[in-house]
Amino acid sequence: MTKSPIQSANEGKPMSQQELRALIAAADDAINREDFDALMAFYADDATLVVKPGMLAQGKAQIRQAFEAIAAYFNHSLRVSQGEMTIIEAGDTALVISRTLLSAHAKTDSPFAMERAATYVFRKDAAGAWRCAVDNSYGTELLMPG
Amino acid sequence: MTKSPIQSANEGKPMSQQELRALIAAADDAINREDFDALMAFYADDATLVVKPGMLAQGKAQIRQAFEAIAAYFNHSLRVSQGEMTIIEAGDTALVISRTLLSAHAKTDSPFAMERAATYVFRKDAAGAWRCAVDNSYGTELLMPG
Repeated sequence: MTKSPIQSANEGKPMSQQELRALIAAADDAINREDFDALMAFYADDATLVVKPGMLAQGKAQIRQAFEAIAAYFNHSLRVSQGEMTIIEAGDTALVISRTLLSAHAKTDSPFAMERAATYVFRKDAAGAWRCAVDNSYGTELLMPG
Repeated sequence: MTKSPIQSANEGKPMSQQELRALIAAADDAINREDFDALMAFYADDATLVVKPGMLAQGKAQIRQAFEAIAAYFNHSLRVSQGEMTIIEAGDTALVISRTLLSAHAKTDSPFAMERAATYVFRKDAAGAWRCAVDNSYGTELLMPG
């Protein structure tokens, strides 16, 4: 359908992809430890978190409040990790599509999916550090069933 | 699970959401007319297009080449439009999740899905205009079936 020089996705896995994977793993670790001070460092000041479909938290104060509520909701047993991941970069912006796996041994009746195809948008700040701008663990499930 | 002041998604539908919807509709119109000069104006200079799973076009020259190949692939009968759309903004960055509908009366044997849950990332350029940075019509389907 196309010819060169169009590239294969993830070809060469540039340094920023490794950096983004390491950042996301460290953010998951902060969630799992409920270390919300550490967690907030991963977000841009004007970041938006999709708390659940139809509900957004905007800015670090709201995002922190949302993570505290989420931790309580899962009875402080939430564990988050990532599976397969695809990163699409465009200059200082990156769209991360990731299989996000959640477990919560002390909250087994949650109606929310515990395996998700998440979409995260990262952008580089003025100092060149990647920050999460949009954290949407629900991915395209935000749309009504088609 | 959370309390105020966390906001409902799309509350108030700010101006930028209307602007983004109008831009995407105009870009679809350019695709449908095969007006690739007009189409390129919607992309950031360093934008990335997911041509198909595993294949990226990066920068306007590659993106234009890809759209020309796509038009030929669909025997110049491709029509694109958007259905339900959710826009998650974070300052100068926006993640658009959109039901993307494709048809091609002269190419009925394509193996690619003609109804997609697409993910687009827009960012504002220095002049304050929204430009598409990541165009991924395949959404989270880029991941292997979970």
